Amino acid sequence: MAESWISIDLSKSAERMDKDVETLGGPDFTSSPDAICRYSYIPEFQKTTDYFKGELEAAGFDAWEDPVGNLIGRNRPKGEPAFALGSHHDSNRNGGKYDGTLGVVTALEVCRLSDELGLDLPLQLMSFIEEEASGFGQGVLGSRLIAGDVTEEYLRETLRATDDGRSFWEHAEGAGHEPARWRECSEALEGLTGWIELHIEQGLVLQDGKMPFGIVNAIVGVNWVDLRFHGRADHAGGTAMANRADAGIAAAETVVELERLVNEQSVPTVGTAGVGQFHPGLYNVIPGEARLGLDIRSVDAAVYDDVIERIIGFAEQRGAAREVTVEATRNPLTAATAMDGGVVCALEAAAKDSGRDYTLMHSGGGHDTQIIAPHVPSAMIFVPCKDGISHSPAEDADTTDAAIAVEVMLNAVARYTAS
Amino acid sequence: MAESWISIDLSKSAERMDKDVETLGGPDFTSSPDAICRYSYIPEFQKTTDYFKGELEAAGFDAWEDPVGNLIGRNRPKGEPAFALGSHHDSNRNGGKYDGTLGVVTALEVCRLSDELGLDLPLQLMSFIEEEASGFGQGVLGSRLIAGDVTEEYLRETLRATDDGRSFWEHAEGAGHEPARWRECSEALEGLTGWIELHIEQGLVLQDGKMPFGIVNAIVGVNWVDLRFHGRADHAGGTAMANRADAGIAAAETVVELERLVNEQSVPTVGTAGVGQFHPGLYNVIPGEARLGLDIRSVDAAVYDDVIERIIGFAEQRGAAREVTVEATRNPLTAATAMDGGVVCALEAAAKDSGRDYTLMHSGGGHDTQIIAPHVPSAMIFVPCKDGISHSPAEDADTTDAAIAVEVMLNAVARYTAS
Repeated sequence: MAESWISIDLSKSAERMDKDVETLGGPDFTSSPDAICRYSYIPEFQKTTDYFKGELEAAGFDAWEDPVGNLIGRNRPKGEPAFALGSHHDSNRNGGKYDGTLGVVTALEVCRLSDELGLDLPLQLMSFIEEEASGFGQGVLGSRLIAGDVTEEYLRETLRATDDGRSFWEHAEGAGHEPARWRECSEALEGLTGWIELHIEQGLVLQDGKMPFGIVNAIVGVNWVDLRFHGRADHAGGTAMANRADAGIAAAETVVELERLVNEQSVPTVGTAGVGQFHPGLYNVIPGEARLGLDIRSVDAAVYDDVIERIIGFAEQRGAAREVTVEATRNPLTAATAMDGGVVCALEAAAKDSGRDYTLMHSGGGHDTQIIAPHVPSAMIFVPCKDGISHSPAEDADTTDAAIAVEVMLNAVARYTAS
Repeated sequence: MAESWISIDLSKSAERMDKDVETLGGPDFTSSPDAICRYSYIPEFQKTTDYFKGELEAAGFDAWEDPVGNLIGRNRPKGEPAFALGSHHDSNRNGGKYDGTLGVVTALEVCRLSDELGLDLPLQLMSFIEEEASGFGQGVLGSRLIAGDVTEEYLRETLRATDDGRSFWEHAEGAGHEPARWRECSEALEGLTGWIELHIEQGLVLQDGKMPFGIVNAIVGVNWVDLRFHGRADHAGGTAMANRADAGIAAAETVVELERLVNEQSVPTVGTAGVGQFHPGLYNVIPGEARLGLDIRSVDAAVYDDVIERIIGFAEQRGAAREVTVEATRNPLTAATAMDGGVVCALEAAAKDSGRDYTLMHSGGGHDTQIIAPHVPSAMIFVPCKDGISHSPAEDADTTDAAIAVEVMLNAVARYTAS
């Protein structure tokens, strides 16, 4: 173990974070008795924000909400250099106790430890609103507001609440915020020297590898491709096989080809046909139309661009052989995002010093960190979640793993901010 | 041309049948202004029955309705030998002028010609109720009543009107029929020496071959197979390709395999995946469930039994390789039905004597003739319909072709009843 290693009382931290998680899993902090349901501007969300503010202040931090409700905590004056940690504390509507919240709780724990151990690391905690899109149907909203990746028109008009159709703007004002000052949200980035987000993995790599954490060095880019196959809806009885324009078979061939294509890639790449539907959807009518919705992700933008081009080409070619035309619509959601080498390096050095098993890995899901990374040197750290389950009341994680990750983050930040 | 050949005035017959078809395509005979919509026990159906009764009586036939409304016309006393011709005069709800109706109109024309030409062939016309399932959701009902392939429970309770949920029994009584006497419907089979149904082809064989008619020597058996694939609905981002149980890909492979399997059969066989749906049907969720609905038809029961067994086996095997289980449900709708060699032979002999191009062919769709064939030596004759379109207001056929077919039927019946 390196000379500079900062040891923490793992069981004490695990217990304290367990208390945080269980408190925030209680009835005051969720609008559903059966799951965590917490989204922007409902009372349970504000109570959660208030809980974190209270805990941050107890650790000697200033804590406040920005003009739209993103939570900021700092132990340095605004604008001075600090290293940021955090995640989001909203949930999906049928969610668990760990997704997002554990990232804020571990960030809080680093803040507490920095205070208790007299380290006085320059720290900023951030917790973003609306990562899960549960309130207004659009995800990573808080981080996009901070990054300036929105327009006033979008906030005033386009963005509407799922529950009542009223605008984001109205809801934010109704909850006591000042959306008119939304451009000031970007002040949260001032002085930041780095950013680490801890999150549950939502996969099986760490559980299968029996590792308490993983260091994320890339987040996949996510692309959706909508394919509409237009054939001819003839009668299944009267139409010989050779005379058909069966949109369904062309679509089925494309589903099979997508798996083959992604499996031949050498960097982490996945492709999913999650939407598949034949029309009119009757036994005795040849599908005149078929629709596929593809989700294609890779850590390398060149790879997903190539896979997308090839799968569309394949669909068109197979379609043409069947007198089926194909309409393809590309919807690039997020770009592949490499993590910052310096922050990853600091995390790896701390991980090695910890003596624990860990792995470098990519994130197959999107996170606020993708929005922050273009502005601040960023990385993520994953902890295992039971059976990879998330977005469900069955979501489970172990705060013992989280405490180990907290110790690694604390040391990484100490190392990074000292250098 | 053979010595015994009976010539008819083709253009006179074509014109007369054209008048029949156009009359019955008029507003008194359909409940929709945009299509033919005519199903059992609505006034427009009864008016159509009455039209045929009037025309039959004008040709010297007795005409009546059986206890449920099937139309019977005869130029011989009940029970005495006669050769039967006909089809159905109900339509689907958005139908055309030719499906079914042209079979009754051509049968009527044979009856008229037998009278006018002094042939006095022993004839019976039959037109069945509810072939199209438009009134009560169950097809070939009139012929099944005649064949005795129903139960009283089914008529009194099970069979319910699509429009109001009231029973078949109630509707039949309300229209002035006597369903309690339904067992007497079978009297229509007494004394029958043969049966020919003329129908529009609902396919492209005759149009592509520029032939005025085809002689049907087999009707395919229709089988539906419901396949439910059960996999695991994991997150499309967090789940590596190797860790998936993707129900959608297993289903897609099965769609592709079905086409391959039926294409390698040596007798007319078609297979269609008309129903295809992935669940939950979201871009970013691997399909945990997928459903396929297959329609498999062949003129040879051994062939469709084998295809069904092999496609289910394939689905199970591909599923097992993906940790996807498969639930298969077979639903045999109709059995493959060979036409009677004697009736087909009589039609072929007349066809050859006519000097016209024709073909022996199978029917890919189901018809009342399948129900009648086990009881009476049966065959069918097809005439072309424009672009194979049926069950649509765009349905079109040429009464000149129908007149040629009438001449062939007339000669076939004359030959068959003389022998």
